[in-house]
Order: sequence, then C-alpha cells, then structure tokens
Amino acid sequence: MHDLAGADPALRFSPYCWRTRFALAHKGLPVETIPWRMTDKAAIGFSGQGRVPVIRDGATVVSDSWAIAEYLEQTYPTPALFGSAAAQAHARFINAWADSAMLGGFGRMILHDIFTIIDAGDRDYFRQSREARFGMTLEAMREGRETRVEAFRESLLPLRMVLSHQPWLGGAAPSYADCIIAGTLMWPRCSSRFAVLADDDPIAAWFERMLDLYDGLGRKAKRP
Amino acid sequence: MHDLAGADPALRFSPYCWRTRFALAHKGLPVETIPWRMTDKAAIGFSGQGRVPVIRDGATVVSDSWAIAEYLEQTYPTPALFGSAAAQAHARFINAWADSAMLGGFGRMILHDIFTIIDAGDRDYFRQSREARFGMTLEAMREGRETRVEAFRESLLPLRMVLSHQPWLGGAAPSYADCIIAGTLMWPRCSSRFAVLADDDPIAAWFERMLDLYDGLGRKAKRP
Repeated sequence: MHDLAGADPALRFSPYCWRTRFALAHKGLPVETIPWRMTDKAAIGFSGQGRVPVIRDGATVVSDSWAIAEYLEQTYPTPALFGSAAAQAHARFINAWADSAMLGGFGRMILHDIFTIIDAGDRDYFRQSREARFGMTLEAMREGRETRVEAFRESLLPLRMVLSHQPWLGGAAPSYADCIIAGTLMWPRCSSRFAVLADDDPIAAWFERMLDLYDGLGRKAKRP
Repeated sequence: MHDLAGADPALRFSPYCWRTRFALAHKGLPVETIPWRMTDKAAIGFSGQGRVPVIRDGATVVSDSWAIAEYLEQTYPTPALFGSAAAQAHARFINAWADSAMLGGFGRMILHDIFTIIDAGDRDYFRQSREARFGMTLEAMREGRETRVEAFRESLLPLRMVLSHQPWLGGAAPSYADCIIAGTLMWPRCSSRFAVLADDDPIAAWFERMLDLYDGLGRKAKRP
C-alpha cells in the first residue's frame, strides 16, 4: 500500500490512507506500506490515477479508500466491514459527511501544521493547491483556530448523539463507519499538536478505544 | 397513531411523525392517524410522555420515531427497514444528522410559517418554547432566510454526494434512511411555501421519487 508520508517517512497522516489501514487491520490482513509523497505521481502511475491510498493485492490494484473498502469486503468477507448492502449504503453517507463536514472543518485548523511536516519537495504544490481551494493563505487559515474550534466541535454533534446510544458507530462492534471517522481523526493527530477535540468529549473517549484496537495500530503511529 | 396536526386537522407536518408514516408504509402496515395538538398532553398520557408520534399496535404502545422504527423492524421483519444490525447502527448516524443539521437549519427558516398554521391553542406554547430555544423571536428567525438558505443547501452536501452514487440512501432500494430524510423534508413541505431546496438539486429529484412511493403517500399530503 502506498501511504502518504511527511519529510520524516514515519509520519503518516492521510485520513484516507488511515481509513484503509484500519479497514485492513479490521480484516486481519497484513500490509506493507510504502511511504509516498504528494508530488511523486510516477510512483503510483500503475494505478491509473494520482492519489493515495493505492493497494496492490496480488495482481489487483485498487485506489480510493471507499473502493478499497468495497474490494476488501467482497474479497475477504469476514470479519465484515459492512455485512449487508444497506449497511454499506448507509456507511456511504457517513463517509460523505466525514469528507465534507469533518475534513473541511479540520482543514483550516491544521493545514499550516501539515505544511511544516511535509517533504520540501511537496511544499510548493501543497501551498498552491490548498490556498487555491480555501481562497486564503495557509497562515490566514490558522488564524483564530482556538476560537473557531468551538463551532467545529459543535458540528460533530451527530457523532456524539450516536455514541450516547451505542459503543461503536457500527453498533455493538466496530464497522467500516468506525474506520472512516477514526481515520479522519488520525489526520490532525498525526500532523499537528492542535487539540481538535476537548478531552471530556465522548467522541474523544471513543477515539481512544479506537486507538487501542488492532494491537494499538492508531496509538503507535508517530506524532509530530 | 397520534400525529401532529395544524389548525386544519388535515395539515400534518411533524418530521418525526412523517418518518413513522413512511416506515409504516414501507412495511405495508395500515394505520389510522389521530390528529393531535402540541398542548394536548392528556391525549397521549397513556404513552408515559408528551410527544408524538405515538403508535398503539394491539396492546403495545411505542413513542419516539426511532424506537418505533426498531419496534416495527423487530415485529414485522419484512420488508426490511434496516435488514442488519450494522445497517441499523449506521442509520442512527443519519437520524442524528437529520435531527441536528437538517432540523436545526430548517427551524430558523420555517418556524414562523408553522406558527401561522397551528391551532390557536398551541400558539403561546409554540412561540415561547421556540423563541427560548433559538434565543430570538419567530419574526427575527424568518428574516434573511432567502439569503441564509444558500448556506443551508450547501450543508446538505453529504446527501448529494451519496445520491450521486446510488438511487436511494438505502442503496438499490429505499431503507429507513430514506424515511428519515424524506420525513424531515416533509416538515417544510407541509408547513410552508418557502423553497428549502433548489429545483435542480439532485436531492429534490430523489425527494420527488420518495413522494411517489407508497401510492403517493407524501405527494397526497395537504400543503398550506
């Protein structure tokens, strides 16, 4: 699996790659990760596109974290990531919400921190593409994040509501929904020291449990 | 089933009651609805709480739209609303998102319209409780809604993303996730003439299909 890395190749912080890492661990599948940098499009040219995660499983190449989850479920049905067509369809909503509401909210808080940990060769590309997307400089994005984080935390209310009723987003046991949200939270965890969650947030308590799963996969990940 | 009604008893606009109406129709279960007003707590005292929907099925009384969906799934398994434990767990997130993001967003746009259609006996209670919750008058909530609706429409992006991949929120066929979101959209539809969705929004196209389901249950509902 090609996995986004910082200047320090041990720093792995892509939220999409983490969704895949958790999904592979959930299936009990071993994986060799290959550190990859944003501008190294040639290294994943074999996948026919330019983004990670990309997995190679024997002769099969799959890119895009959602497509990889579908591939894993079909190829290695147990333990289930979804377990039913409706569970998969519903998880797609959680995936879309994480992509739009969570990643969008995190972005303005941590993109400058990410800039400081990525490889020198990635910096121009990163600054230009992110500043174009948000319409402001990386420095401007960071400004006032201590204040803005409160509204962001409030926007995570649906997660809090669900976790007040069940221990995992998947219900009695973790599912790919847990991989999605935990993977998304690995983005700030492994790229920044800014606290995106309050310590007493029930989401933080659930995330701590996720960090312990799969032999502590998430907890062992290097932080900046 | 006790169902929230306006001054005109044919006006039924509760988003929670509509989730239950769609769920009952999905199961093919006939229902007799009893118009209910917000201040008529005595009429549903038998349920041990003061909100609708409340259903009575033989000797069983169930309140709360989510609890009713669980009850229906357990008591009348087919056709399935969830179909698996994980599908149900994931749908709970969609339910929580609809409650927080959608109902919160609609509220400020339509609560004044609702005030104009409810029974005279409900008005004092409605104004006081809603103005306390939002910290402003019903008239102030409505102000600028033509501008604010744009940001609200953008906040529905996760729905749009999902519907670009699959015809129903439940996947190839509707599930309780479709009942949740369609029920939520029945709130503005049956209480207001304010257009909460743009005509060319893919969410509107999906909602039109939902209105046609179950022998046109949603489409036949009276509008103000």
